[in-house]
Amino acid sequence: MNPDPDYSAAYVVLRTDLGDGHGFCFTIGRGNEVCVAAIRAHAPLVTGRALDLDDLGGFAKGLLHDSQLRWLGPEKGAVHMAAAAIINAAFDLAGKVAGKPVWKLLADMSPEQIVDLADWRYLTDALTPADATDLLADMLPGRNAQEARLLQYGFPAYTTTPGWLGYSDDKLVRLARQAVAEGFSQIKLKVGVDVAADVRRMRLAREAVGPGVRIAVDANQRWDVPEAIEWVRALAPFDPYWIEEPTSPDDVLGHAAIRRAVAPVKVATGEHVANRVIFKQLLQAGAADVLQLDACRVAGVTENIAILLLAARFGVPVCPHAGGVGLCEVVQHLSMFDYVAVGGSTRGRVLEYVDHLHEHFADPVRIVDGHYVAPSRPGLSTEMKAASLADHLHPGGPVWRNA
Amino acid sequence: MNPDPDYSAAYVVLRTDLGDGHGFCFTIGRGNEVCVAAIRAHAPLVTGRALDLDDLGGFAKGLLHDSQLRWLGPEKGAVHMAAAAIINAAFDLAGKVAGKPVWKLLADMSPEQIVDLADWRYLTDALTPADATDLLADMLPGRNAQEARLLQYGFPAYTTTPGWLGYSDDKLVRLARQAVAEGFSQIKLKVGVDVAADVRRMRLAREAVGPGVRIAVDANQRWDVPEAIEWVRALAPFDPYWIEEPTSPDDVLGHAAIRRAVAPVKVATGEHVANRVIFKQLLQAGAADVLQLDACRVAGVTENIAILLLAARFGVPVCPHAGGVGLCEVVQHLSMFDYVAVGGSTRGRVLEYVDHLHEHFADPVRIVDGHYVAPSRPGLSTEMKAASLADHLHPGGPVWRNA
Repeated sequence: MNPDPDYSAAYVVLRTDLGDGHGFCFTIGRGNEVCVAAIRAHAPLVTGRALDLDDLGGFAKGLLHDSQLRWLGPEKGAVHMAAAAIINAAFDLAGKVAGKPVWKLLADMSPEQIVDLADWRYLTDALTPADATDLLADMLPGRNAQEARLLQYGFPAYTTTPGWLGYSDDKLVRLARQAVAEGFSQIKLKVGVDVAADVRRMRLAREAVGPGVRIAVDANQRWDVPEAIEWVRALAPFDPYWIEEPTSPDDVLGHAAIRRAVAPVKVATGEHVANRVIFKQLLQAGAADVLQLDACRVAGVTENIAILLLAARFGVPVCPHAGGVGLCEVVQHLSMFDYVAVGGSTRGRVLEYVDHLHEHFADPVRIVDGHYVAPSRPGLSTEMKAASLADHLHPGGPVWRNA
Repeated sequence: MNPDPDYSAAYVVLRTDLGDGHGFCFTIGRGNEVCVAAIRAHAPLVTGRALDLDDLGGFAKGLLHDSQLRWLGPEKGAVHMAAAAIINAAFDLAGKVAGKPVWKLLADMSPEQIVDLADWRYLTDALTPADATDLLADMLPGRNAQEARLLQYGFPAYTTTPGWLGYSDDKLVRLARQAVAEGFSQIKLKVGVDVAADVRRMRLAREAVGPGVRIAVDANQRWDVPEAIEWVRALAPFDPYWIEEPTSPDDVLGHAAIRRAVAPVKVATGEHVANRVIFKQLLQAGAADVLQLDACRVAGVTENIAILLLAARFGVPVCPHAGGVGLCEVVQHLSMFDYVAVGGSTRGRVLEYVDHLHEHFADPVRIVDGHYVAPSRPGLSTEMKAASLADHLHPGGPVWRNA
């Protein structure tokens, strides 16, 4: 579905007298300028205004509830990605001002403070703010122990590196073995173009890693519901752990039908889910075993807090989408906050890792023995290096001038 | 929810050696430039290319399946509205070349031609192209009689004019009576700010129009699910015909819960539904009694054909959203095509009418005795007058210079 990604980002710097916050939303090329236009459309709601770092929930709602911009969504597409970039920039700033990485900033908040960050509109049939506060309060006693374990062991990762379509069988086998040697307990294969080839690749991967390593498969929305069921059943003999994005990300009922048909293979989705209302329904309909939130498609940290709380309420693990531009850097904060203060466990949770573009970030992720190391630097790890920004600035930067 | 609309449009002219096609998507002010950017992002897929008027389904898919632009949706928000503007412009051109209004252009096509216009991806669990072809073939014998009735009587309309929030009680009563005198058999009230005021306004409207005229109420997404149920029950003694947009347009399961709780009051939704996948689920879940497609939010004529076919499959009437900028002009073609060739009946179908901005269109709608008169001029009625375009061009036009 994404044959020719040309990784791009619309980058926001929120300049304040307390310092700068950095955020972005990422695209795969054409249309990046639409996100830039959408970010600029929010500028009058931000520039010259006072920013209350103790009310970032209010700041986010100020962007998301603008009635005229809302018309372009509501809460989806380019305007929503733009809001994500700005809201994440505000959290990056808040972390820097507090001298904490954002996972720790959030994990040190009271249940009431966390609940106040989320926008509860359209959620109360599934979870009320009062119930969410209780849920967070129940987790308070475990926070210190979870934080200590996080700092000691990190957060479990899986790798998509071996499984891209187009790799030779030899390369697939070599990279799958290498991933296991590096300490990963889960790998992922892209599927969906040719069922016979997918069966062959899945068999080779299973033979390479043995029975104890999970192999997730990812269809990137290629199938209709009946085709998804048939295809996953063809792969089932090789014990796929989850099928990711089997169909349209909007199709809650379709995911539910697929999940019923392919169990015990799990269904995972979320990287293209537009907002918390669709996530709520995936949970209500029993449509997913694994929720894969994205840092920059829903409205940043605040909406992701709502999604983490909903997932905890329904007992469904969140395994964020990463890769792209800087997603690994951002989503690690969300998963670590989830572990310390919301879900309280790493059971069933694993964070995608793609070894790609980290060199452009001021505080890149670190993976040790198949685990993300908890970042210690203040902020949301969203800041790109000044040289990378200058080099890739469109259209005047040297990378573009020389293209 | 829309307190300060500043009606705006991103306007497309598709210039070809066969003539020009006109299309647009409409916004309520801020963010219109985001739609302009999204339309421009599609330009490389359109300009300089050959346009096959016998394969407008292929033309539409060429826009919608672009993998990089799709990342900004998929199929939602600004990029989808942009696709709507371009696709509708192509149909306006096709109607002009054929010398037919688009409702007639479509209604003269074979079942196979109609089915080929739709994008069937993600729909086949609910309706296959073969079943849709059969459905259309079953309606072939009635086409001539339905067209004759359409030309004689027009298509039934309802009016939102009496019911805007902020009107005095006197004005509401006067306009409600006037609507009935003008031949409308349905009116609509906006609700959702103050339940006591809504009960009073609903009572006054019911007293003004009597028991035989339908009164729809429209909440414009203001409520969570529990609040929607409570509010509609408070209005129920005055026999509301439908509750429109009671909650988030993404919330299929929420609409289903509301519908179960407020029956026999009908649930209507669709003006902000992003695409055919959400419409499919509204039908599968029994979440709506009335589907309200929009001409410019989903991907124009082609996606609306899929929605009309799905609705016919499930036996749910389509009553399009109109008003805004030029929606009445466009959706009349969809409803008339639906009547002649798809649904085959006006039962339960009524087309919104708002008396607003028609003066800017080259072929404005005509309402006689509460009915839309079938347009006879070739095209999709999307073309604005040259003077209106020149006057309102942003930022250089005289209306903006003098603002």
